[in-house]
Amino acid sequence: MDSRQFRQAAHAAVDEIIGYYENIQDRRTLSNVEPGYLQKLLPTSPPQTGEPWESIQKDIEGKIMPGLTHWQSPNFMAFFPANATYPSMLGELYSAAFTAPAFNWLCSPAVTELETIVLDWLAQALALPSCYLSSSEGGGVIQGSASEAIVTVMVAARDRYLHEKTKHLTGGEKDQKICELRGKLVALGSEMSHSSTQKAAMIAGVRYRSIPTSIASDFSMTGDGLNRILEQCRREGLEPFYLTATMGTTSTCAVDRFDEIADALRDSPLVWVHVDAAYAGSALVCEEYQHHAKHFEAFNSFNMNMHKWLLTNFDASCLFVKRRRDLIDALSITPSYLRNGYSDSGLVTDYRDWQIPLGRRFRSLKIWFVMRTYGIEGFKAHIRHHVKLNDLFHSLILSRPDLFRILTPPAFALTVLSVALSNDFVPDASNQAILEANSVTRDVYELINSRGEIFLTSSMIGGIYSIRVVNGSPQAQESHVHKAFDILVRTTEEVLSSR
Amino acid sequence: MDSRQFRQAAHAAVDEIIGYYENIQDRRTLSNVEPGYLQKLLPTSPPQTGEPWESIQKDIEGKIMPGLTHWQSPNFMAFFPANATYPSMLGELYSAAFTAPAFNWLCSPAVTELETIVLDWLAQALALPSCYLSSSEGGGVIQGSASEAIVTVMVAARDRYLHEKTKHLTGGEKDQKICELRGKLVALGSEMSHSSTQKAAMIAGVRYRSIPTSIASDFSMTGDGLNRILEQCRREGLEPFYLTATMGTTSTCAVDRFDEIADALRDSPLVWVHVDAAYAGSALVCEEYQHHAKHFEAFNSFNMNMHKWLLTNFDASCLFVKRRRDLIDALSITPSYLRNGYSDSGLVTDYRDWQIPLGRRFRSLKIWFVMRTYGIEGFKAHIRHHVKLNDLFHSLILSRPDLFRILTPPAFALTVLSVALSNDFVPDASNQAILEANSVTRDVYELINSRGEIFLTSSMIGGIYSIRVVNGSPQAQESHVHKAFDILVRTTEEVLSSR
Repeated sequence: MDSRQFRQAAHAAVDEIIGYYENIQDRRTLSNVEPGYLQKLLPTSPPQTGEPWESIQKDIEGKIMPGLTHWQSPNFMAFFPANATYPSMLGELYSAAFTAPAFNWLCSPAVTELETIVLDWLAQALALPSCYLSSSEGGGVIQGSASEAIVTVMVAARDRYLHEKTKHLTGGEKDQKICELRGKLVALGSEMSHSSTQKAAMIAGVRYRSIPTSIASDFSMTGDGLNRILEQCRREGLEPFYLTATMGTTSTCAVDRFDEIADALRDSPLVWVHVDAAYAGSALVCEEYQHHAKHFEAFNSFNMNMHKWLLTNFDASCLFVKRRRDLIDALSITPSYLRNGYSDSGLVTDYRDWQIPLGRRFRSLKIWFVMRTYGIEGFKAHIRHHVKLNDLFHSLILSRPDLFRILTPPAFALTVLSVALSNDFVPDASNQAILEANSVTRDVYELINSRGEIFLTSSMIGGIYSIRVVNGSPQAQESHVHKAFDILVRTTEEVLSSR
Repeated sequence: MDSRQFRQAAHAAVDEIIGYYENIQDRRTLSNVEPGYLQKLLPTSPPQTGEPWESIQKDIEGKIMPGLTHWQSPNFMAFFPANATYPSMLGELYSAAFTAPAFNWLCSPAVTELETIVLDWLAQALALPSCYLSSSEGGGVIQGSASEAIVTVMVAARDRYLHEKTKHLTGGEKDQKICELRGKLVALGSEMSHSSTQKAAMIAGVRYRSIPTSIASDFSMTGDGLNRILEQCRREGLEPFYLTATMGTTSTCAVDRFDEIADALRDSPLVWVHVDAAYAGSALVCEEYQHHAKHFEAFNSFNMNMHKWLLTNFDASCLFVKRRRDLIDALSITPSYLRNGYSDSGLVTDYRDWQIPLGRRFRSLKIWFVMRTYGIEGFKAHIRHHVKLNDLFHSLILSRPDLFRILTPPAFALTVLSVALSNDFVPDASNQAILEANSVTRDVYELINSRGEIFLTSSMIGGIYSIRVVNGSPQAQESHVHKAFDILVRTTEEVLSSR
């Protein structure tokens, strides 16, 4: 593909993408292909000779599109959103053009320096305490996903703990103690924490234990709940060294009680607290949510995904640590062929020592484009628009107490609801009414998704089968909220009438 | 940015990228900005209001470009290449447009299915044994980097080892044995293995030991060398569970002796052998290299980076495993909100269980575009072109025995050379002549890079300071080889005459 062919192909691609976005809401949101559909459409072996772009491009609509679930559709209200925007696409395009696996500063100084700058910008926009800025002992780094960020900080937490607990020892005695401690290390999260904490514990080779939550505290982790598990661990001779606290849990968008957590851990400075704000962290751009951020000073790291709710396409997971030295101590290996004067001087950041992979893409470029295109005012308007849509949706659900129940307060742009069957509904899964309601809610949920007009997700929360509805598409408008509500009402009535 | 503005911005971006590629060889290859250069050019806080694309775009040339090291330049001969091409850029553009953190099949079936298909295509193109195809018990998955792939398989190897060694035990006894074993696990690599194996061992919380190599075997790992370390480990009560074997080491592109390694481990089926072919694996598209691949049947996993030498922009690290169950056993956690009928049925692949992160980009799209644009014939021509350029370069170096020495045979598209000072050169670092030659070679290397016309890397190999010269840019032609040679001659003569 020469320059002329690329220009032509790129123009055709841009036109196709614009067409895709302009008509996305008319597509079936959830793909309904059968497993193996694409195998039937493509050859089993690679082509021997090259093909022109025209024949490749026509397969996108013909073969790929049927197998896409349209995350950018305003009718996509499942999981959490995965925003993509035009300026962020331009960022990917330039990043691909400038390809460099920029594992150290010299590999392409702009890749490192722009990352430090835009993450400092972001830290300010989110009102993070100044300890998370690069001018302090901390700083930010772009990771591929919140899960990757959790593995990264858990490994740093583990190694810091082992180091601090054995620093008075040497030689075989030290090795022996480290071995003994390894078997006792336990990472903690609440039972509403994302599964990535448990997976990180598997990768880091440590135990995992979860802290129960209850409807009484809207499924937030409390200081009492944490204290009970800490005591239990200590009674069993285990060594808690890490905790994930969540701002915006997956199931209900609960915010853990940061002040109580900080209190509970005041005498345990070696327990690393990581704040997982993968989705809800974006809301910190708005003053009305920034009171949460002041607590983070007591913690060790914070992560939010711009690729969820802040207009930047996947991946753009922004991790901030209070002490960059902890990451570097756990992850740095500098062999001779990666050494250069600048890195040795300490004047520059080598982000490879802040992450698991060696190479890295130029992801700060898309963040830079997005921040400059929208400005902080644009970010605020974006978040508030979805919160307002969620308020509308919540009020619509409340208008039909004959059909729906709300389990937890609406949070950020998420509403969690279930079908109401009787007036004596109580949150106790042994109750026959609840089992029935669960079954109906599940039927409603499955019927809606099987029709694919809108896409929702479900969750089992304290024994209650619930439907999660999230507004997060940049294209979402009131009409989409009304449409989703109408589908919910219609489908619920249909399911109820067929019983 | 609305559709009209995006079309205009994208056209301007495409024109800028084409201009960049057309004139890239005229730019200084290695950036010469000072640390902190960008901080001085950009505001310390994010913009409050949005800006038009024109004002963002003009900062790319003005502020970003000076800080780029041009990996796509034909004058870039450092590290290993990081190919980018026009069809691969189009892949990134569509991937960004279709953004979905496609952590399971239903999230976007096409993302999963295209990945399985193109990795089966690639396995065929590389002549991998059929056990690495998805139709067997194995299959391929796209990872972000070779380092990430190594952590992933090492964790699977660790957990498989612990499971197999304790499967006869239960309860506390099992826990006790696992704890005891953990402290003894040791991952192995040769001393020429990439540092990512050592880093993976740190992340997985296991020991690392390296196998010496020597110039007698051109720095390849041998069966004898491996056996010596295996015996040493066992004498010390350690448990070797993992080995990285390399096809194309970083320093000299040595290929480890796969047949001898397979022999040495014939009675150790629990030692997981991973083949790191990050760079040289691309050469397997050519028949003349495919004899290496037949050995991989005896091993457990294989990785090569299309983003190095196979025309696909970073990241596209292709990992193949012989038994996918091993990955899934180590990495799968399926909470209720990620469950769906298709995943439960076992009919579909959920790649989140084959990797560390949860979400993933639609990276198979760019691989598909690239494979179809070039075809296998195009891939072969690309590899052979660089091998031929390297042969030319090697013969030029040989034509000046008064100035240069070759330490190891040229391999793939890499030549490793050092400055020759005396005729009694022997590879023994205590030799005064060698210390002097090292100093001169280093001066030559540093002077060339400080001038930035071409960019090379250096390595200390068996005590010899060496310069690595790699041809890998899709734009590389004979003229660039001659230019690099001329610069080497001129600079060496300059350094020698100033002594």
